[in-house]
Amino acid sequence: MWVYEKKLQYPVRVSKCDPRMAKFLMEQYGGADGELAAALRYLNQRYTLPERVIGIVNDIGTEEFAHLEMIATMVYKLTKDATPEQLKEAGLGDHYANHDKALFYQNASGVPFTATYFQAKGDPIADLYEDIAAEEKARATYQWLIDMTDDVDLQDSLTFLREREIVHSQRFREAVELIKEDQDTKRIF
Amino acid sequence: MWVYEKKLQYPVRVSKCDPRMAKFLMEQYGGADGELAAALRYLNQRYTLPERVIGIVNDIGTEEFAHLEMIATMVYKLTKDATPEQLKEAGLGDHYANHDKALFYQNASGVPFTATYFQAKGDPIADLYEDIAAEEKARATYQWLIDMTDDVDLQDSLTFLREREIVHSQRFREAVELIKEDQDTKRIF
Amino acid sequence: MWVYEKKLQYPVRVSKCDPRMAKFLMEQYGGADGELAAALRYLNQRYTLPERVIGIVNDIGTEEFAHLEMIATMVYKLTKDATPEQLKEAGLGDHYANHDKALFYQNASGVPFTATYFQAKGDPIADLYEDIAAEEKARATYQWLIDMTDDVDLQDSLTFLREREIVHSQRFREAVELIKEDQDTKRIF
Amino acid sequence: MWVYEKKLQYPVRVSKCDPRMAKFLMEQYGGADGELAAALRYLNQRYTLPERVIGIVNDIGTEEFAHLEMIATMVYKLTKDATPEQLKEAGLGDHYANHDKALFYQNASGVPFTATYFQAKGDPIADLYEDIAAEEKARATYQWLIDMTDDVDLQDSLTFLREREIVHSQRFREAVELIKEDQDTKRIF
Amino acid sequence: MWVYEKKLQYPVRVSKCDPRMAKFLMEQYGGADGELAAALRYLNQRYTLPERVIGIVNDIGTEEFAHLEMIATMVYKLTKDATPEQLKEAGLGDHYANHDKALFYQNASGVPFTATYFQAKGDPIADLYEDIAAEEKARATYQWLIDMTDDVDLQDSLTFLREREIVHSQRFREAVELIKEDQDTKRIF
Amino acid sequence: MWVYEKKLQYPVRVSKCDPRMAKFLMEQYGGADGELAAALRYLNQRYTLPERVIGIVNDIGTEEFAHLEMIATMVYKLTKDATPEQLKEAGLGDHYANHDKALFYQNASGVPFTATYFQAKGDPIADLYEDIAAEEKARATYQWLIDMTDDVDLQDSLTFLREREIVHSQRFREAVELIKEDQDTKRIF
Repeated sequence: MWVYEKKLQYPVRVSKCDPRMAKFLMEQYGGADGELAAALRYLNQRYTLPERVIGIVNDIGTEEFAHLEMIATMVYKLTKDATPEQLKEAGLGDHYANHDKALFYQNASGVPFTATYFQAKGDPIADLYEDIAAEEKARATYQWLIDMTDDVDLQDSLTFLREREIVHSQRFREAVELIKEDQDTKRIF
Repeated sequence: MWVYEKKLQYPVRVSKCDPRMAKFLMEQYGGADGELAAALRYLNQRYTLPERVIGIVNDIGTEEFAHLEMIATMVYKLTKDATPEQLKEAGLGDHYANHDKALFYQNASGVPFTATYFQAKGDPIADLYEDIAAEEKARATYQWLIDMTDDVDLQDSLTFLREREIVHSQRFREAVELIKEDQDTKRIF
Repeated sequence: MWVYEKKLQYPVRVSKCDPRMAKFLMEQYGGADGELAAALRYLNQRYTLPERVIGIVNDIGTEEFAHLEMIATMVYKLTKDATPEQLKEAGLGDHYANHDKALFYQNASGVPFTATYFQAKGDPIADLYEDIAAEEKARATYQWLIDMTDDVDLQDSLTFLREREIVHSQRFREAVELIKEDQDTKRIF
Repeated sequence: MWVYEKKLQYPVRVSKCDPRMAKFLMEQYGGADGELAAALRYLNQRYTLPERVIGIVNDIGTEEFAHLEMIATMVYKLTKDATPEQLKEAGLGDHYANHDKALFYQNASGVPFTATYFQAKGDPIADLYEDIAAEEKARATYQWLIDMTDDVDLQDSLTFLREREIVHSQRFREAVELIKEDQDTKRIF
Repeated sequence: MWVYEKKLQYPVRVSKCDPRMAKFLMEQYGGADGELAAALRYLNQRYTLPERVIGIVNDIGTEEFAHLEMIATMVYKLTKDATPEQLKEAGLGDHYANHDKALFYQNASGVPFTATYFQAKGDPIADLYEDIAAEEKARATYQWLIDMTDDVDLQDSLTFLREREIVHSQRFREAVELIKEDQDTKRIF
Repeated sequence: MWVYEKKLQYPVRVSKCDPRMAKFLMEQYGGADGELAAALRYLNQRYTLPERVIGIVNDIGTEEFAHLEMIATMVYKLTKDATPEQLKEAGLGDHYANHDKALFYQNASGVPFTATYFQAKGDPIADLYEDIAAEEKARATYQWLIDMTDDVDLQDSLTFLREREIVHSQRFREAVELIKEDQDTKRIF
């Protein structure tokens, strides 16, 4: 079980009301390579991965929920002072019609989140490569998002998140090595 | 952010290997009224609900993740000793072909989880009725699941979860009253 | 069975060609809390709800089809004189590429209608709270739509529809009371 | 708008409780070529088809709702006396876990209904061929369903529905000719 | 099996960088009546259609893959020199956030491709009318796309593709006649 | 463009009519890690991957279509002599109701194929890890399928396909090295 601690993993600041950027950030809230997909993917794998790497997916999965909260905070801050007219101009008129300013787990195009974005195979090598690929894809999304804004405060938070994905990718590569080592050991005896 | 604590909210015990029951329980893992839908629904509403009821959705959302973990543990325990042949007989041959014994966020029919199962409107009364309905629907699912098993250990955990939904439904009804009270107060001044 | 009567439940007038507003109105045609979802939800529940409340869901479900027809008429009137260029400017270029000016059951973002937007549990209390929540969510959507237009003719029709949702919500609350009454009576004898 | 008349278009009788057949019949309730898809397809096309054929889609669309009600009645009658155990044996354990005995708009595999099953192009020839194809596909499904049951009462209702699809297919072919005639006339003058 | 030949079926030229038109063209890449849906539909039917018409679906299905490649080339050429800012202005900011300039099988609104767009019934008449309807719908989409651009080079390629759909529609109509002929012959003997 | 050659990449033989196994094999026809997903993923990446690795994705994508054809042949051969009653016993009654014996792009549970199963990011490292993960996941699925049958002829074809996935995974790993090499070279100058 999880205990909520009322703080963000890393500070989230934005320089201005910018609903258009909020729209693009939703990609990391409810999109294919977003933080929700990441968190759910790793935590779901805990039951069938080998003992030795369960801690890694548990830790990273839990951290991704903290990232999800950071993204939610960004989207909220970028839109909270926008008028309906500003939301329309930013391409969020469809969002407003359905959700007012409430958040929703969908991608930047408004496609609702689906679990088909990720996978669990019960084969440790396959599952860990799924995880490495996920981190590389999330890293790319953060790069495209950083490219799309000139808000230095927002860039700071996004850069932090992109860096964490690189660290996670590295940890999953190490996990692959641990598994291969174990498999080799088993083959010897 | 959330901190992981290595224990279940309530003990999960099963009396026997029963993959057929595991299949039905997946409804509460990745189904329309399951624990994942519940957790995501409430935590997403935190940003736009009035101050006074944010604590309630935050608490219940966090608890639903603990429930999700209990369901995962049940599914895992009911299937871990099953052979591929037993999985086929239990109607889980399709699951095995895709996931081996790994869990996945899908309902009992194998339909992958989608965020279209729930909603956020940015209108507090609408959102809280969405939440009351969610709890009543989850309560009903737990009842149907309890009806489908004679495993008393499993029934014990499921009964705990059903009771929690009743408590949550009550808390959301109280939250509706708090909001109405505030709206009445605002109208007076 | 149903007999078609060639008139609208309430007149639909629009003051001008406004494809951008038509796009937002599609939310109530094929969106999560739209009239199609409403009609299908209630009519589907007729078979397993208790005798005493079947008339209510049958009446309201039938009325929602009349509302669906009103929304279709609005969308049609707001777009029928638009050129392809005007549709593109209104954010409906994607709609034109796929459907020309034909209507389609999708939400304002272009996401096709899915039955996962609603539910039927076979538990009367759960089903009726699903219905109350549905009406409250539809009421909210009508409010956001009214906020988005200054066309007084269109506002008039939307206000009528919003008011009907409030009446329906009230009727479903009364239905809950009827069911509870019956359940109490059964417990006594 | 539509007025409800409390009778079925054609009598529905079933000889026995048969939840397995009910499962297959759901294909025509919420499946790709089912009655819901048919009704929604035709009624949606009313706004952009040429004047001369609007009456046809309006009539047939309204009739398909009557067919939907017949299918619902069949499914209900085939399952109403089944125990949870019988539902499980019939492959409806997943349905029971989610919906008890309530109906739901999904196909025989449990896939929820989606509007992507059909189309509207705003081109009369394309739309009418869509409709002819729809009727031919529904006819095929009724044939497969008739093949799967030896219940003569049920076969009688299904045969009636299959025949109606053949009649509708013929009417849509005639509508194509009407449109072509009009197009030729226009080209002459 | 298929052998790749490094040339396009018909030349693809575009006069200018035009990401907005690229967005609309995606409808024919991953949309309901697009080339992917067409290719997959026909090739899938090869196994159960009567011997006499298998060659037709095999040929046309293979050709549709060549068309898919032409559409991909158009989208690529129309976007390759665009800046992120130009993509945003063209309504492709959401695409950029998720895919940079990579293509993806989705429609013009960003809805991911799904196999529910088409069907296979195992009944030759139904399957061939599905195919005729598909060609008529694709023809309509090409018409709407031609209407949306003034780029004569692009219009040339699109006109070629629209003409091919008309030819295919004719071939499927002939296939219907072949099947009916065979069915009549069988009935005689 | 592609030219069809009327032969399979590798012979497909099955020892007996076995519709239950056919159901499981559909996972590799239209499932998350199946051959359709693989072929479409790689061919789509051709436009934005660096020149140096385009040949690899083009070759492997084309080969995956040959694999798709092998899977289709297996499913067809395993079901072609089955009666409707045998299909029902094999858990394919729902398939029969919708498709008779026609194939369809869906997974073993009957969930229709969706493009959300894969991704394209426009970042070569992310895209190639997506591809490695895809091959590892497909390898795992083939292993689970081999485990589920005792038909040695079928096992032979499945073993061939599993081996090809291992070869592809290796080629994508080499492609990653090529890209990294190029990136290092660019950094030097």
